[in-house]
Amino acid sequence: MDYQALVDDVRSDVHAYRGSGKVASYIPALAQSDPHDFGIAIALADGTTYISGDGDTPFSIQSISYVFSLGLALHHVKSALWNHVGREPAGSPVNSIIQLEIEKGKPRNPLTSSGALVVCDQLIGKRGIEETCEELLAFLRERGDAADIAIDERIAMSESRAGAFNRSLAHFIAAFGNLRNAPEDVLSVYYRQCSIAMTCRQLARAALFLAFDGTDPAKGDVVCTPSRARRINALMLTSGHYDNSGDFAFRVGLPGKSSVSGGILAIVPRTGVVCVWSPGLNEAGTSLVGAVALERLVERTGWSIFV
Amino acid sequence: MDYQALVDDVRSDVHAYRGSGKVASYIPALAQSDPHDFGIAIALADGTTYISGDGDTPFSIQSISYVFSLGLALHHVKSALWNHVGREPAGSPVNSIIQLEIEKGKPRNPLTSSGALVVCDQLIGKRGIEETCEELLAFLRERGDAADIAIDERIAMSESRAGAFNRSLAHFIAAFGNLRNAPEDVLSVYYRQCSIAMTCRQLARAALFLAFDGTDPAKGDVVCTPSRARRINALMLTSGHYDNSGDFAFRVGLPGKSSVSGGILAIVPRTGVVCVWSPGLNEAGTSLVGAVALERLVERTGWSIFV
Amino acid sequence: MDYQALVDDVRSDVHAYRGSGKVASYIPALAQSDPHDFGIAIALADGTTYISGDGDTPFSIQSISYVFSLGLALHHVKSALWNHVGREPAGSPVNSIIQLEIEKGKPRNPLTSSGALVVCDQLIGKRGIEETCEELLAFLRERGDAADIAIDERIAMSESRAGAFNRSLAHFIAAFGNLRNAPEDVLSVYYRQCSIAMTCRQLARAALFLAFDGTDPAKGDVVCTPSRARRINALMLTSGHYDNSGDFAFRVGLPGKSSVSGGILAIVPRTGVVCVWSPGLNEAGTSLVGAVALERLVERTGWSIFV
Amino acid sequence: MDYQALVDDVRSDVHAYRGSGKVASYIPALAQSDPHDFGIAIALADGTTYISGDGDTPFSIQSISYVFSLGLALHHVKSALWNHVGREPAGSPVNSIIQLEIEKGKPRNPLTSSGALVVCDQLIGKRGIEETCEELLAFLRERGDAADIAIDERIAMSESRAGAFNRSLAHFIAAFGNLRNAPEDVLSVYYRQCSIAMTCRQLARAALFLAFDGTDPAKGDVVCTPSRARRINALMLTSGHYDNSGDFAFRVGLPGKSSVSGGILAIVPRTGVVCVWSPGLNEAGTSLVGAVALERLVERTGWSIFV
Repeated sequence: MDYQALVDDVRSDVHAYRGSGKVASYIPALAQSDPHDFGIAIALADGTTYISGDGDTPFSIQSISYVFSLGLALHHVKSALWNHVGREPAGSPVNSIIQLEIEKGKPRNPLTSSGALVVCDQLIGKRGIEETCEELLAFLRERGDAADIAIDERIAMSESRAGAFNRSLAHFIAAFGNLRNAPEDVLSVYYRQCSIAMTCRQLARAALFLAFDGTDPAKGDVVCTPSRARRINALMLTSGHYDNSGDFAFRVGLPGKSSVSGGILAIVPRTGVVCVWSPGLNEAGTSLVGAVALERLVERTGWSIFV
Repeated sequence: MDYQALVDDVRSDVHAYRGSGKVASYIPALAQSDPHDFGIAIALADGTTYISGDGDTPFSIQSISYVFSLGLALHHVKSALWNHVGREPAGSPVNSIIQLEIEKGKPRNPLTSSGALVVCDQLIGKRGIEETCEELLAFLRERGDAADIAIDERIAMSESRAGAFNRSLAHFIAAFGNLRNAPEDVLSVYYRQCSIAMTCRQLARAALFLAFDGTDPAKGDVVCTPSRARRINALMLTSGHYDNSGDFAFRVGLPGKSSVSGGILAIVPRTGVVCVWSPGLNEAGTSLVGAVALERLVERTGWSIFV
Repeated sequence: MDYQALVDDVRSDVHAYRGSGKVASYIPALAQSDPHDFGIAIALADGTTYISGDGDTPFSIQSISYVFSLGLALHHVKSALWNHVGREPAGSPVNSIIQLEIEKGKPRNPLTSSGALVVCDQLIGKRGIEETCEELLAFLRERGDAADIAIDERIAMSESRAGAFNRSLAHFIAAFGNLRNAPEDVLSVYYRQCSIAMTCRQLARAALFLAFDGTDPAKGDVVCTPSRARRINALMLTSGHYDNSGDFAFRVGLPGKSSVSGGILAIVPRTGVVCVWSPGLNEAGTSLVGAVALERLVERTGWSIFV
Repeated sequence: MDYQALVDDVRSDVHAYRGSGKVASYIPALAQSDPHDFGIAIALADGTTYISGDGDTPFSIQSISYVFSLGLALHHVKSALWNHVGREPAGSPVNSIIQLEIEKGKPRNPLTSSGALVVCDQLIGKRGIEETCEELLAFLRERGDAADIAIDERIAMSESRAGAFNRSLAHFIAAFGNLRNAPEDVLSVYYRQCSIAMTCRQLARAALFLAFDGTDPAKGDVVCTPSRARRINALMLTSGHYDNSGDFAFRVGLPGKSSVSGGILAIVPRTGVVCVWSPGLNEAGTSLVGAVALERLVERTGWSIFV
């Protein structure tokens, strides 16, 4: 397959949609994004990557980070994680706290905001905030093949200032005794993790182990067991796009994770990883143009896990 | 692969679990089931089937029927169906009506009770109750290669009598104007559809088109488009097991549909279909022994869609 | 005090508001009401009554009936009633079922639709539907001093046909085991009770015992104990106006009960009973003009229980 | 009436109940309270007070403070307050956040925790934290006839440390844009206000204006308009006891306000004010012995507003 042609063609496919959707406005730093931006990257088994458009433009990865912090938390605390967070789809909007009350402070899954806070808390464990952030950065630099991946501190500050909802989530979870660390410490790691800046190319490269049963196929490193990689993919499929996960599975048919900054990571088992980015969001908070791009890509390639 | 050995081995694998779980008790006719019963069947591309245990014992298919009525409704009303029912996971227990109120009478997806009622309503359209049931039976007899598939009228009667919750769902949906037919007519089709008696062998055979992009590979019949088959699989993956769908994807990794009678249908794209049956349920209403059996089967075969 | 002048003055006070509010449209028979209609009546200790405007025009009493059926149910089953229904304010809109699920089929109080269904069920007990309705009618004729009070069967039919929401409530409560009779029997009594036609004058007269510690002051009959009368008043104060009860207490300061047909009954302890009627409703389902009229009446008389 | 005999008799009435109920344990400083403590005080029109038991023992007034801060906020911002907080009963447990989400950050009424936070925020206005607390203290000293009323800083510290739930409420309200000040500033006032230490005698005396149409009958000071006093009483009646307000109205029949520290203030219009205190709580968070005491007092005196 001519992968460069593929990513260029998909970029052409979505040309008419550019500028659609609504840029996230809850934090000032994101509100300035341009909905006309569009990038796509594919990473393949041998580590080669192909990009089109703004595939080398860094953006704050926001909740795409949840996938990687989940991987690290499972490494550290293993299945004990599931005492603190479930693995069922949320079935409710991204900004809802209702379910968390009904289920007594145990988030539905690690790919929601509340679940990611619990994952952060477990990840911190008995370490400090800095050490926890450093481990995640080191992991992303190693897997993403890019030594300069860093936190965008301006975004992190903006998130922390504007983050009343996430702050209420953290204190609410703490009220049920489901945080080991002080809520402000957990939030500090959380906001910094969300503010890591990466490009489509780096993200696709970094997630490659998930498409190959836990092993980075280019470097040969065993990142996690096959079973854990499959399970992370399963969670992405059922819960990777807030309250749009069912629709994404229906239309695209690949495990994926959306971010409020407009990125979408999509795993193609045994083939590679695709990452798209375009800041305009649909009503459920997934990149509107990004989702269309992945739909077209799957039509062109037949890369659905459902056949 | 020696498929006979496979189903026999899986049956051995779960021997120690037989009798676990809790038989559904909300209708008298189901409450008499024996939790020690266990059946398994596999149907392959050429139409051959392998069974072990009680794989030829008929049971009321209950909500496994939703998969087939969904297929027929999509055939009749096409994408207009999505005006009446969504495609996101429910994220709430099988017996909850809360979300239906918050979302103004539009069920979350066609594989919940409320969604299946809406699908029934669309399926009835302007026809009578009898004709609607007959079409579904004819479809299952044809696809299941078994001319004697029929409604267990004793179960249907028992369901109707005991069905206060489903009756309240139907009237509640009607109160929001989302039913075209009288609630009692919709319930009549619904209870009869749930009471169709089939064996694991028949169910696996009947769903074979879903594993082969919409075409029955043994008979060569095009049952639906590839896209529709993939989409039905996607819905089964995200929503096929009530509030246990995330866990099933996590542990088994195949599109599937559970029933309160203890059946589980699982699609293995490009390979075949597995059906297991054992009446003891876990807390979320999925067959406890059945889910363990599918977990073992996937460990033995590597048949996960997530790698 | 010149009571005739009082009711005439209050009628003048609300002249500019006539026609405001929205007539209930969920049943065809109510949708034809004229929002310009306005009636008021006062009944005093000696049984004399004063009216102004349409105070002698009969209207279906709808949920004002709950007050009287509650009184009868307490007579029959006494405090055992509180095993089946609570006595806390609902804190949610009239058409919400959420709380009923969270509280497992036990309605919050007897003055909501769901609570009134449970009261009906207890009132039926082991008798038939007809006998139950007859008892309520006999009570209202005796207390209202009007032998011709009857059910408006046209309204009852219209309610039953259009009553999908109440039907779902009844089946939902039944699903939790909180009904002794068949839901359709309970609904039959319920719809007929709501369809009793009475005038403001008759309603004010009928409720007089509630203002005088359980004894009809004109006839001298002991209708209930002082304690029961006070408790019914307390329930009217906290829960008599759906999700508008707090506002009504705040503005008017009298125990009362609103109906979707635009009636409001208000108890003035040790003085008498006021009944107003005007079909246009505010957003919470209370008569808009009726509530203003009672506010003006209290300003003119100082009849608040809160001082 | 012999008021000293009355309070002594009521104290005897509840002797057998002493020690019942469960002391609030969510903050360490409250958890040490002795459920056998019991105090009662009555304040009358001429300012005389009668006590029995521990009626001169100070306790942190907790949510009884809401009544006074509401009065002050209405003085400062008048009816604009109702743009930020409603006046309907909550209909949900004290520790629930669900309704606040459904109603987009506008608390149901000023006598819940979330409502009291909004009242604090309005009270702070553009002033500092200290000035706001000082105004409330000055008000209570003046009205309570006790110059030494002060904040128990040990309790305030304990509340702030343990207050994860209230902290999540404040940030949640802020996320909906319904706070003008920083959540931590609002919480600082809130925790200090809850930690004011007062005796039953002081509380009964301080609330006397509410029983006499807004005027302190002993000092002759006009504290607020008659209309505002009645409205505060109405709010206490419908919402003064968390999710126990309906039951309290049903059993006692007086406007009142409970606190988690075991105090209950009860207004007897045109007669006086009663305050009881006993730290053991019933399931809904109202003083168990205190509520029984008020029930007995009303039986002995006939002081219900419902007749």
